[in-house]
Amino acid sequence: ANSILSSFGTTIFETMSRLAQAHGAVNLGQGFPEGLEPAEVVAKAAEALTSGPNQYPSMMGTPELRAAIGAHDKRFYGLDLDPMAEVMVTSGATEALASCLFGLIEPGDEVVLIEPLYDSYLPIILRAGGIPKLVRVAPPHWDLPRDQLAAAFSDKTKLIVLNSPTNPAGKVWDADELAFLAGLLEKHDSYAVCDEVYEHLVYDDRRHVPLMSLPGMRERCLKIGSAGKIFSLTGWKVGWVIAAPALLQPVAKAHQYLTFTTPPNLQAAVAFGLGLPDAYYQGLVTLLQARRDLLAAGLERVGFQVLNTGGSYFISADFRPLEFSGSDEEFCRLITEKAGVAAIPVSAFYQTKDVDHFARFCFAKTDSAILEAISRLERYF
Amino acid sequence: ANSILSSFGTTIFETMSRLAQAHGAVNLGQGFPEGLEPAEVVAKAAEALTSGPNQYPSMMGTPELRAAIGAHDKRFYGLDLDPMAEVMVTSGATEALASCLFGLIEPGDEVVLIEPLYDSYLPIILRAGGIPKLVRVAPPHWDLPRDQLAAAFSDKTKLIVLNSPTNPAGKVWDADELAFLAGLLEKHDSYAVCDEVYEHLVYDDRRHVPLMSLPGMRERCLKIGSAGKIFSLTGWKVGWVIAAPALLQPVAKAHQYLTFTTPPNLQAAVAFGLGLPDAYYQGLVTLLQARRDLLAAGLERVGFQVLNTGGSYFISADFRPLEFSGSDEEFCRLITEKAGVAAIPVSAFYQTKDVDHFARFCFAKTDSAILEAISRLERYF
Ligand SMILES: CSCCC(=O)C(=O)O
Ligand SMILES: CSCCC(=O)C(=O)O
Repeated sequence: ANSILSSFGTTIFETMSRLAQAHGAVNLGQGFPEGLEPAEVVAKAAEALTSGPNQYPSMMGTPELRAAIGAHDKRFYGLDLDPMAEVMVTSGATEALASCLFGLIEPGDEVVLIEPLYDSYLPIILRAGGIPKLVRVAPPHWDLPRDQLAAAFSDKTKLIVLNSPTNPAGKVWDADELAFLAGLLEKHDSYAVCDEVYEHLVYDDRRHVPLMSLPGMRERCLKIGSAGKIFSLTGWKVGWVIAAPALLQPVAKAHQYLTFTTPPNLQAAVAFGLGLPDAYYQGLVTLLQARRDLLAAGLERVGFQVLNTGGSYFISADFRPLEFSGSDEEFCRLITEKAGVAAIPVSAFYQTKDVDHFARFCFAKTDSAILEAISRLERYF
Repeated sequence: ANSILSSFGTTIFETMSRLAQAHGAVNLGQGFPEGLEPAEVVAKAAEALTSGPNQYPSMMGTPELRAAIGAHDKRFYGLDLDPMAEVMVTSGATEALASCLFGLIEPGDEVVLIEPLYDSYLPIILRAGGIPKLVRVAPPHWDLPRDQLAAAFSDKTKLIVLNSPTNPAGKVWDADELAFLAGLLEKHDSYAVCDEVYEHLVYDDRRHVPLMSLPGMRERCLKIGSAGKIFSLTGWKVGWVIAAPALLQPVAKAHQYLTFTTPPNLQAAVAFGLGLPDAYYQGLVTLLQARRDLLAAGLERVGFQVLNTGGSYFISADFRPLEFSGSDEEFCRLITEKAGVAAIPVSAFYQTKDVDHFARFCFAKTDSAILEAISRLERYF
């Protein structure tokens, strides 16, 4: 067995979902939404299945979906793309990330990462031969330690993986932070793999700004998107990478051997969905923001100290006020098994598990699931 | 950019499909079927989309599909599997291969390969840090050179990738060859990644025998299957790996970071399809065998020397009788652009391009497409 991959456990999301199922817990762990699937997008996929084609589309994605992604990024960010040369469809954002990292990293390259980080980054970077350089962003404010970030860059830095908005912190990087980062990329002639799967899920009138939209960043960024997150259809596994041709080409070389292509019917439906009017996107934000507020208020009533969340599906909450003194893993197990509510330990997003008193709760669930979870927690504590 | 992956071109299948499209050619290049999609399987997927769920299923695949795969391999090969511990669903057989190779290979491990070979094997093995040891099987009879195969194994051999039936040669390994190989695996304590995507596509009353079904091979083989090939729905990208738990676990570690999971609706339809009566499977073989014979007869009429094909979608044909003296790549380009029929050069399946006078034609097309291709070739030559 490969020693790098074997040193990692089963992904925490799967582990907690299995535990939730075994204990009949309300699953506020793994980040998938409930009750938000747009019926017309689903209907489109069913139609496209029935009418076909059902064979391999182009490995870069169907021309329709690539065009729709280009139009989407023009509409929302003013990006001017040549979709046939600068967009590649992947089998989900996880594959997009893997293709970027295997396609770009040469063994020995340094890769800058900001903790807390999504759990596939580190294993894939190591397996690809990269040398991770970790910078920490700490709760409760998740402020960027600029000196440390600058110090993590060197002449050997191939790229940074930038998640924005972030999972699990729900941080939306502001223009100033992004400009600082852009300066580092230019100074060190490096690239950014921008995991922007939560691009539309930003709240309280914040705006998502792609790093790619900053001056000089067009040729340095690979922007990853996710239909699963935009259309609340995480099972479809349709994602994409946007990048200048010279950057996209080596990534396509990985993609063609990792999955090669993505179901054309789902691509057709996503192409349709991306063209939905602004009201669709605003409606999604309004609904999710209300759910965030519902969950945050409930967790506070239970006694958690709830951190601010500007984006994503997630709230992180400090459980020390509940007088629990074990680790966050123990806490999440306990509430899953005993209170019947699953959450994810935030330490799972750090390499060393010392940020260990926060639980991550997903609020992209139905109101009744959220209320049931809160009442279970209230009963337990 | 990663130097290993960048050294490979765009996959030949995509390249020739693009060329076919640009020239309005009948596409007998890339291996995908036409007119064989079972309507009831497609309808099932459309239903499962509409009824949901549309969120992440288990990373190992839905329990229903895993059970159906177990039952399928029991029905056809008498294999006794524990589907919940020994089956993993992947986003196509390409991802299954990548997960096996990234999950099992440790840098420096030797990997035995038999040429001609499918075009993703070599780049992924190299990217995973493996050291390929190539053995050649040569046209026109594709006989296994046993001495050379034995010599390719060493104490450093981690695994062999065995394609059966083979692409492009259409060779179905017989019991004697498989037993010889099994002996080598035991002698060198090695594994076999068995790419059996064409398991049902064997003709003239041949039988597909999985290496895994031989004595002692249950713990040494990873068997890869493809719904795309069994149900003529290559765009769906639903594949799987079957292996003993100790072998499957490291592969799952790669899978969870390469794609994580596969659309649940398509999985539901494939689970249904695998349960179709034997008549479905026999009907598929009957149809494809008739198409093979139609294409073979036509190519012979044109003047090709057609090799025997025991399985798969493919016929390889020697074009030297047509008095063309360029390479097979030149030949395939020529007939795509000038005759309006696309094929794949067989040299694409060899590392050094010296087997260079065969074109591979896909016969999984409609009768009218095959007849049109033949009449175009007749007109041209
Ligand atoms: C790919 S499963 C995990 C889903 C997710 O993004 C999360 O829970 O953080
Ligand atoms: C993954 S695209 C190639 C399809 C195929 O198996 C072939 O043409 O050999």
